[in-house]
Amino acid sequence: MRVLGVDPGLTRCGIGVVEGTAGRPLRMLGVGVVRTDADADTAERLVLIERGIEEWLDAHRPEYVAVERVFSQHNVRTVMGTAQASAVAMLCAARRGLPVALHTPSEVKAAVTGSGRADKAQVGSMVTRLLRLDAPPKPADAADALALAICHIWRAPAAGRLQQLAAAQRRAGAPVRLPKGTR
Amino acid sequence: MRVLGVDPGLTRCGIGVVEGTAGRPLRMLGVGVVRTDADADTAERLVLIERGIEEWLDAHRPEYVAVERVFSQHNVRTVMGTAQASAVAMLCAARRGLPVALHTPSEVKAAVTGSGRADKAQVGSMVTRLLRLDAPPKPADAADALALAICHIWRAPAAGRLQQLAAAQRRAGAPVRLPKGTR
Repeated sequence: MRVLGVDPGLTRCGIGVVEGTAGRPLRMLGVGVVRTDADADTAERLVLIERGIEEWLDAHRPEYVAVERVFSQHNVRTVMGTAQASAVAMLCAARRGLPVALHTPSEVKAAVTGSGRADKAQVGSMVTRLLRLDAPPKPADAADALALAICHIWRAPAAGRLQQLAAAQRRAGAPVRLPKGTR
Repeated sequence: MRVLGVDPGLTRCGIGVVEGTAGRPLRMLGVGVVRTDADADTAERLVLIERGIEEWLDAHRPEYVAVERVFSQHNVRTVMGTAQASAVAMLCAARRGLPVALHTPSEVKAAVTGSGRADKAQVGSMVTRLLRLDAPPKPADAADALALAICHIWRAPAAGRLQQLAAAQRRAGAPVRLPKGTR
């Protein structure tokens, strides 16, 4: 399973590509950041982010795209930019027919470190170990994008089982609601 | 001046095209709504919105695109969808090299009705009168998109004068900060 993870942002959009299956060693295929100038028009920045993500999709041909689910509890201004950048990432993936999964920051932290409240350094250190890298990827947005991809690979079997269960229950005529992010 | 206004939203994205210049009667060239199913995946909805906006841009070839500036004071869930839909509108315009202007809801209301606190009905009624329509465009998102386009046409001369002033001051060596939304 090849997954491209996106940690969305207007100034720094983290991208990480990981290949593997749950329970087996994982392999990093690429990591980087799409940057745009904070002084530029938002519309121009979105065009550059689209171009950057398209280049990553062309280069790595992932089967899945995992994007951080954006919440608006945080700083108002940042959140709008994050929502806009995540929209571009989702659009690029869905336009190619790639399935898009959204994972919350705490789901990602819990998957990678075992704790939903892990800090940036802990996430970076676990990503380094899991992918057998020489040093934590910099900036943190790049490490977070890899963590998203890892999270998606590890959650996929559970999501698959839930979907099989739902299909079986639908066949049996029972209504079913899947948890968010499993389809 | 031909302007395509976008009142962004995931469920209903209002679109209105208006032609004219400040101080002269305006003409509506088209109005409508791009709708997407609230039960669909967000990524799929963004693809449909992109396709819808592209069709409007192809059909009417506007010179400017005016998009409502999104704030996050309101309902958290709605705002994320609005920010995502507005990102797609800005992306579609900027990708074609069209200038994108953002206007706040109160700027639009003030431009069209004279009051920044006008309600939906007042905006709809003034849009109907200014464009000499038989009835207010429905739904309100469609009327709001027309109001955005009208606001842009009427604010353009002021924005143009500000830009000339800024250019003159730059030539004279003085630093200048333009108000948001004037470039």
